[in-house]
Amino acid sequence: MSKFKLISPEVANVPWQEKPEGLTGAPIWRYSENPVIGRNPAEGVARIFNSAVIPYEGAFIGVFRGEQVNGIPYIYMGRSQDGIHWEIEKEKISFVDENGDPFMPVYAYDPRLVKIEDVYYIIWCQDFYGAAIGMAKTTDFKTFTRIENPFLPFNRNAVLFPRKIDGKFMMLSRPSDSGHTPFGDIFVSESKDMVYWGKHRHVMGKSSEWWESVKIGGGAAPIETSEGWLLIYHGVSGTCNGYVYSIGGAILDIDNPSIVKYRCENFLLTPEEWYEERGFVPNVTFPCATIHDSKTNKMAVYYGAADSYVCLAFTYADELAAYIKEHSMVRENDTEIGRR
Amino acid sequence: MSKFKLISPEVANVPWQEKPEGLTGAPIWRYSENPVIGRNPAEGVARIFNSAVIPYEGAFIGVFRGEQVNGIPYIYMGRSQDGIHWEIEKEKISFVDENGDPFMPVYAYDPRLVKIEDVYYIIWCQDFYGAAIGMAKTTDFKTFTRIENPFLPFNRNAVLFPRKIDGKFMMLSRPSDSGHTPFGDIFVSESKDMVYWGKHRHVMGKSSEWWESVKIGGGAAPIETSEGWLLIYHGVSGTCNGYVYSIGGAILDIDNPSIVKYRCENFLLTPEEWYEERGFVPNVTFPCATIHDSKTNKMAVYYGAADSYVCLAFTYADELAAYIKEHSMVRENDTEIGRR
Amino acid sequence: MSKFKLISPEVANVPWQEKPEGLTGAPIWRYSENPVIGRNPAEGVARIFNSAVIPYEGAFIGVFRGEQVNGIPYIYMGRSQDGIHWEIEKEKISFVDENGDPFMPVYAYDPRLVKIEDVYYIIWCQDFYGAAIGMAKTTDFKTFTRIENPFLPFNRNAVLFPRKIDGKFMMLSRPSDSGHTPFGDIFVSESKDMVYWGKHRHVMGKSSEWWESVKIGGGAAPIETSEGWLLIYHGVSGTCNGYVYSIGGAILDIDNPSIVKYRCENFLLTPEEWYEERGFVPNVTFPCATIHDSKTNKMAVYYGAADSYVCLAFTYADELAAYIKEHSMVRENDTEIGRR
Amino acid sequence: MSKFKLISPEVANVPWQEKPEGLTGAPIWRYSENPVIGRNPAEGVARIFNSAVIPYEGAFIGVFRGEQVNGIPYIYMGRSQDGIHWEIEKEKISFVDENGDPFMPVYAYDPRLVKIEDVYYIIWCQDFYGAAIGMAKTTDFKTFTRIENPFLPFNRNAVLFPRKIDGKFMMLSRPSDSGHTPFGDIFVSESKDMVYWGKHRHVMGKSSEWWESVKIGGGAAPIETSEGWLLIYHGVSGTCNGYVYSIGGAILDIDNPSIVKYRCENFLLTPEEWYEERGFVPNVTFPCATIHDSKTNKMAVYYGAADSYVCLAFTYADELAAYIKEHSMVRENDTEIGRR
Amino acid sequence: MSKFKLISPEVANVPWQEKPEGLTGAPIWRYSENPVIGRNPAEGVARIFNSAVIPYEGAFIGVFRGEQVNGIPYIYMGRSQDGIHWEIEKEKISFVDENGDPFMPVYAYDPRLVKIEDVYYIIWCQDFYGAAIGMAKTTDFKTFTRIENPFLPFNRNAVLFPRKIDGKFMMLSRPSDSGHTPFGDIFVSESKDMVYWGKHRHVMGKSSEWWESVKIGGGAAPIETSEGWLLIYHGVSGTCNGYVYSIGGAILDIDNPSIVKYRCENFLLTPEEWYEERGFVPNVTFPCATIHDSKTNKMAVYYGAADSYVCLAFTYADELAAYIKEHSMVRENDTEIGRR
Amino acid sequence: MSKFKLISPEVANVPWQEKPEGLTGAPIWRYSENPVIGRNPAEGVARIFNSAVIPYEGAFIGVFRGEQVNGIPYIYMGRSQDGIHWEIEKEKISFVDENGDPFMPVYAYDPRLVKIEDVYYIIWCQDFYGAAIGMAKTTDFKTFTRIENPFLPFNRNAVLFPRKIDGKFMMLSRPSDSGHTPFGDIFVSESKDMVYWGKHRHVMGKSSEWWESVKIGGGAAPIETSEGWLLIYHGVSGTCNGYVYSIGGAILDIDNPSIVKYRCENFLLTPEEWYEERGFVPNVTFPCATIHDSKTNKMAVYYGAADSYVCLAFTYADELAAYIKEHSMVRENDTEIGRR
Repeated sequence: MSKFKLISPEVANVPWQEKPEGLTGAPIWRYSENPVIGRNPAEGVARIFNSAVIPYEGAFIGVFRGEQVNGIPYIYMGRSQDGIHWEIEKEKISFVDENGDPFMPVYAYDPRLVKIEDVYYIIWCQDFYGAAIGMAKTTDFKTFTRIENPFLPFNRNAVLFPRKIDGKFMMLSRPSDSGHTPFGDIFVSESKDMVYWGKHRHVMGKSSEWWESVKIGGGAAPIETSEGWLLIYHGVSGTCNGYVYSIGGAILDIDNPSIVKYRCENFLLTPEEWYEERGFVPNVTFPCATIHDSKTNKMAVYYGAADSYVCLAFTYADELAAYIKEHSMVRENDTEIGRR
Repeated sequence: MSKFKLISPEVANVPWQEKPEGLTGAPIWRYSENPVIGRNPAEGVARIFNSAVIPYEGAFIGVFRGEQVNGIPYIYMGRSQDGIHWEIEKEKISFVDENGDPFMPVYAYDPRLVKIEDVYYIIWCQDFYGAAIGMAKTTDFKTFTRIENPFLPFNRNAVLFPRKIDGKFMMLSRPSDSGHTPFGDIFVSESKDMVYWGKHRHVMGKSSEWWESVKIGGGAAPIETSEGWLLIYHGVSGTCNGYVYSIGGAILDIDNPSIVKYRCENFLLTPEEWYEERGFVPNVTFPCATIHDSKTNKMAVYYGAADSYVCLAFTYADELAAYIKEHSMVRENDTEIGRR
Repeated sequence: MSKFKLISPEVANVPWQEKPEGLTGAPIWRYSENPVIGRNPAEGVARIFNSAVIPYEGAFIGVFRGEQVNGIPYIYMGRSQDGIHWEIEKEKISFVDENGDPFMPVYAYDPRLVKIEDVYYIIWCQDFYGAAIGMAKTTDFKTFTRIENPFLPFNRNAVLFPRKIDGKFMMLSRPSDSGHTPFGDIFVSESKDMVYWGKHRHVMGKSSEWWESVKIGGGAAPIETSEGWLLIYHGVSGTCNGYVYSIGGAILDIDNPSIVKYRCENFLLTPEEWYEERGFVPNVTFPCATIHDSKTNKMAVYYGAADSYVCLAFTYADELAAYIKEHSMVRENDTEIGRR
Repeated sequence: MSKFKLISPEVANVPWQEKPEGLTGAPIWRYSENPVIGRNPAEGVARIFNSAVIPYEGAFIGVFRGEQVNGIPYIYMGRSQDGIHWEIEKEKISFVDENGDPFMPVYAYDPRLVKIEDVYYIIWCQDFYGAAIGMAKTTDFKTFTRIENPFLPFNRNAVLFPRKIDGKFMMLSRPSDSGHTPFGDIFVSESKDMVYWGKHRHVMGKSSEWWESVKIGGGAAPIETSEGWLLIYHGVSGTCNGYVYSIGGAILDIDNPSIVKYRCENFLLTPEEWYEERGFVPNVTFPCATIHDSKTNKMAVYYGAADSYVCLAFTYADELAAYIKEHSMVRENDTEIGRR
Repeated sequence: MSKFKLISPEVANVPWQEKPEGLTGAPIWRYSENPVIGRNPAEGVARIFNSAVIPYEGAFIGVFRGEQVNGIPYIYMGRSQDGIHWEIEKEKISFVDENGDPFMPVYAYDPRLVKIEDVYYIIWCQDFYGAAIGMAKTTDFKTFTRIENPFLPFNRNAVLFPRKIDGKFMMLSRPSDSGHTPFGDIFVSESKDMVYWGKHRHVMGKSSEWWESVKIGGGAAPIETSEGWLLIYHGVSGTCNGYVYSIGGAILDIDNPSIVKYRCENFLLTPEEWYEERGFVPNVTFPCATIHDSKTNKMAVYYGAADSYVCLAFTYADELAAYIKEHSMVRENDTEIGRR
Repeated sequence: MSKFKLISPEVANVPWQEKPEGLTGAPIWRYSENPVIGRNPAEGVARIFNSAVIPYEGAFIGVFRGEQVNGIPYIYMGRSQDGIHWEIEKEKISFVDENGDPFMPVYAYDPRLVKIEDVYYIIWCQDFYGAAIGMAKTTDFKTFTRIENPFLPFNRNAVLFPRKIDGKFMMLSRPSDSGHTPFGDIFVSESKDMVYWGKHRHVMGKSSEWWESVKIGGGAAPIETSEGWLLIYHGVSGTCNGYVYSIGGAILDIDNPSIVKYRCENFLLTPEEWYEERGFVPNVTFPCATIHDSKTNKMAVYYGAADSYVCLAFTYADELAAYIKEHSMVRENDTEIGRR
């Protein structure tokens, strides 16, 4: 594992806290001061969670799912010097169409944020006569121009790869239904122009491991490594008192990400703390972003907790990859190309 | 807003605690010592919640939903000097019929308590070959005489107006179904004699605001003000892990309360504290009564928390009304007479 | 049984066909030329079923559930010389409010038609922010004036008694839910003025007999007899492929119809013919009206078949009553006053 | 209406039978010898239904949903001289991939068949890790080459437009869920190359007309006319005993088919005959293809009946279009561009 | 296949009708005069179906599911000279306990009838605080003594093997749930004394063939042949309008019947006739018994149709076995011992 | 009550903590240091709960439900000197078959542990083509030999009696379904050899007390006393936000345990503490074992909390029995033999 390498810039100021003593299980640990964003973080916003951040101009910038006091979610921008303390903007992000005219979604939630060739893309879930994927791009975090919805409804949990593969944009998504969706697999689609999408392939589905036996969905943007694309995703278990959302990990083939090379049979993190176990939706840990430093392999994972809080966990990317490989269990559905 | 006025007696000893610093959102704040009634408050009673109180002979009296240790709810009487510390009677209220013979419901829950022309009325939910509204009256809080069930099943969350309108008793209710009711609007009905009810009108329904997108139901007795009837009600959101009950506010036309003049698009209070988020039914804040002082506009809101506790929140009635008006969004269903 | 007597006018031209040979079971037999109203009976009306008729000026008049070609039901008027061949009016009935202004329901279905003291009342199911009971009155079958909706939603299958009892109008109804209602009992309510209703009592519920083990609902207007009120109702069984609606019979106490004196444990008629077993809703026989002649005890039962046709069955009222008594099984829920 | 014109070739041998006397409702009538394909039409095939046909070399050719005796559907080819009597091939169609290698779906059903610029496209529903759209092309009806699945699951009822619009292939589809889908709207998507699809737009959804109040789905390929694209689709009603599938009609804007110009509020055809009301799925009329002659406006509509039979109905395209316009009711959802 | 042999007595008067011309699919054909028992076959019995018969004293005797006119099923005895025309006894079978005291089930349905060593056993489904298996024995068809219920609830479709295997009674059953059971596999259990049962093994489950993709259940008593135990069972498909019950066939290992040697991937018979497609439960063909002649291999299959009729189909046992082998598809679940 | 006696060995070192002041309700109190086993108690095990312990060689030994980090439960062994501090073995228990070959279940949960005549039996829930009861025996806690599964699926919550009755092993179980089972009664079955089981009898069902109105299930092994078998079981209530599992108590007839002598109408313990109210499954208290000292009547109840923790409560067996008798309410279903 000595040759493991993150193929990404160094981020010296990655948020960080050392590994605690006596950690068992996956090499990932919670920030001791969680949650990093608490209740009522801004005027008219009751809860912030399931949000994505990225290094920007030496500090950090993020797009946040802000649940308004009327219960309707929109995306808010925030800035931070250390990735831990955040200033959330008062107004939700104003999207415009190609002509610069206002073009707001009816609602918008669970944003991801990905930089590809100097353009920042936000991908979220919104109403397109049904829950579907919305997308916008910005270069300055001032103007956010919506681009075509990539897919028909019903879809959620879409996230772009941080670079083109073989000249094509690649995007993970999780086809869904019109409700709370008691099923769900991850697919990958490609596009030459971010307008027309095709060559859809199945990546991986729910599994027989109970922690992800109901459905799964992409989380943070895939992380390029010497081993393949490191994917932090969520898996859902079904109990007689509701769903439990845990965090899982897999490594996808670098050239053909519909092929799963390694998939950790164990969850990496599962709700255990009060801020994960109670809140608007109890028992949720929902990863949406990572910040990772290719020099030290330090990695900060941002995850929503209980649909109420933003939280942080830390890991070393190389240790995490090693753990995933050590506990890998892949099935035919995982390793095949995913075309039928 | 300077002319806002509560049309009700002064209650100098209204329970009260000053507004905390830094409050955002609606001008309503929790009592710092919540819950005011905890677990196992009386022999054979496991939990008290969703209860109603009223000023009485210089102190306070109340009717309480007491969940017996067999899980079956009945109504218990309680008394308090300060509205905060309550002595609950050992025995549940014994209802009698018109002849003074015992006439107990199979179960009884979520009582409201309203005084009209020197008679005190208790309104609750009970089995009438299905969940329906039960009613009783008392003048001395010693003899409680049941009167006719006003409505056919299935119904819940009924509450009387504190005075007649145009010579008629008026009552809000929320038609339901035989289970946990995944829908529900508020109606108003009138009666000349508390026996025969009619001229039912639709008041308002669930809305597109997500916090009240599943169902709503009346809460405390409507409060007469110079702006109309101030209504504190509950609204329900549906998540993949269950319902969330928040508190909302509206102002109804003083002469024709089927017309909603203002309806706050935001919740006023939503589960955020441990005693609201965990308990027998997690994520419930359920208002059933207010005590309000027309001299100072101080208002105490009694609400059940997590079907486990009695809690208190405070507001100034005038500030609350102003907030409701400022964030009002009314739809056709709200403003129409409500007859079809 | 010799003293059995229908307390109603003679109707010499009651539709009739003699009892066939070899009839087993209940003394009721289908008209050999069923259905009497077939598909597409009028321009823009695809199906007529679940309808009510009454003797009028020596012939017959009726109110019909007409399913428009857009699928939405309204009430149509029809006239017949023999009660078998019907002319349906081209336009649906136009209801007006108390001022004579148009006041149409959003939809209207399953009408019943009852004459009380020279006024004809139509009772149907309609949208009142949910399925509920609508009512109108006419004296000339030209002007139909809607009166107040008697009950809050959700309710269906209401029908008036053909005379006042102890000075009060009496009405059966079946409280329901917002969907296809997998439960349902019959209640009776009273009113002095057809505006305010109260003193609701439970009449009878579904039973352990499988043919009526899901729900029941009132059918034709109760028929006054020397034995009590003869009630023709429907009972529903649940199979793995849907509901089956059969016809049942009971006799209610003449002075207090919340008391069931006799209740036939057997269905009287159940779907057996092609026009009952296939159609818009397969396996439905749904009675809505009778015509009965007090001189001969001949009785014609009008029932909807498969939500597609109007059909006729015949019986002798005295034989039917005897059969009901012979196979009567009453339970506590039936014989008690029905107040809780 | 004199100027109505079908923009398509003449098909002199269009299957035809004259309009019967006394037809009410929409100007469409069943073939008197329905069903045209009965049970067990081929060795190992139990039922054929929901199938598409097209003129071909002076006769007719078709792709048929053949339900094998193991219950699994595949697509079979058939040929007919008159469009009424069909010879079904013994073996299901063998699809190949781009390299000519066998590439069979796990199952395939509800095919449509469209000719665009001398290439014939089959579009069907198949398993793509969930129900989704499959596509293949042929020029000789001997080699059938599958092309990329256009959409992520879950989707059904896709059909291509018979020509490009503004240089793009256009396709209707109906996003679905993983089960029997109790909802569903029609969308249109475009592609330059049949590989990448985008610019998805909402065309129209279920409506408040009860016959299409549960879901709708595209049927036959849109027919180019002087009034716009004539769309024969299906709409579904929900009863307590299951769904009822009727046939509806609309006319879409010729240049921007996401805009509905006219939409008939009435069904055109609804299950009424025994072969529509009973069978593997009772109460289904499901249109998949038309043959129409631009000289005479004669049009034959092929529809599946009860998931058991192939049936035929006839109409004059101009009369049908006139009926749709006369009974048109369009709502905002219909007339807007359909982008959110 | 020349050596195929039925290991059972000759039954020269097996009901029979020759194979019709042009039969495709499985070598099994319906009796042209179906149904053999129609509606209202006896006083107080509305429908007879899902019943079992056996040769007895040169003629035939049977136990019949008789649906009383109150909808509750019991078991009735019947006798026939030709196996086609049946005389049903007026009174349902009176069961007694070991002491000869009356011991009637609350209800009883879907009986099977098996002779083992000169004792006749009836096995049925009944209420045992939930649907479960009831059993009784008789030697004279006059006294029917109930023996212990073999299994805990919930269970249905149990049937004994006609002889002991390795000294043990063997019984198939289908564990179920408390409702209409949307799942279900066949198990085999053994007993030394018909009182204590154990060594339960899984025989086979629902399969990926769509006609049996929801659940399966044993039908007729297994038939001993030179190839193994020939099992006629039912398989269920799920449509958007309900279940479809077809008839299937398999051959179990003669010494260890938990091992499936052959299992026909195709249904043998599926609802196609009006008496199978409409009735109390549409689309049901449900086999419960066979009569087979070891000399000629003629076999009559008795099946219930639409929960309304008794029907007959014919086959040659050797041809049927050959068809099953020819179209056999066995999976790991089938061929393993079935112990976990 | 002075004569109450535990018929079991003395266990001087029973875990114990004195009764706290002011206890109301049932005479049972929580251990102040609960939970006794917290999160991540062993490498690869995320949670331990619903587990059973027993005195062994002067100390204590137990079998624990260990939820692996892949979410799949297995049984782990643990040892303790004081019954409070436990050392859990690293590896799950390895079961073997009769031949000593490895024979592991697919999963195993909710174990009970009972000693009968010097053999220790573990009884748990496992996959047997559906959730069912698994069993094994050991004499040394080194070799664990699986014996036959006693029952067909679907079953859960089985537990043996600690001695034979009338020469037969006796076992309680709770027939279930394939999912989360919204119903459930307790039955008792007997066996002479632990292989064949029969003479199943209904013991008791859910009741009208709301705390156990959904389902019930056996908990700890029945405790032999001078009053009968003391049964600690669980009862489940259904709320709009999920199930609540409480602990209940009953006393069964010593010779015929299908007869309930006393059944406490009140729960003994219900979720009130944070470790019971939040966790993997909120609101669960689930008893699986007791340790009781016949000299002092001290009794320790081990229960799982929130499917996340092992907890302890204490009681005096005699006081508990007295409380059960004092609040006993038995119904016909309880007191009858339970045979149908």
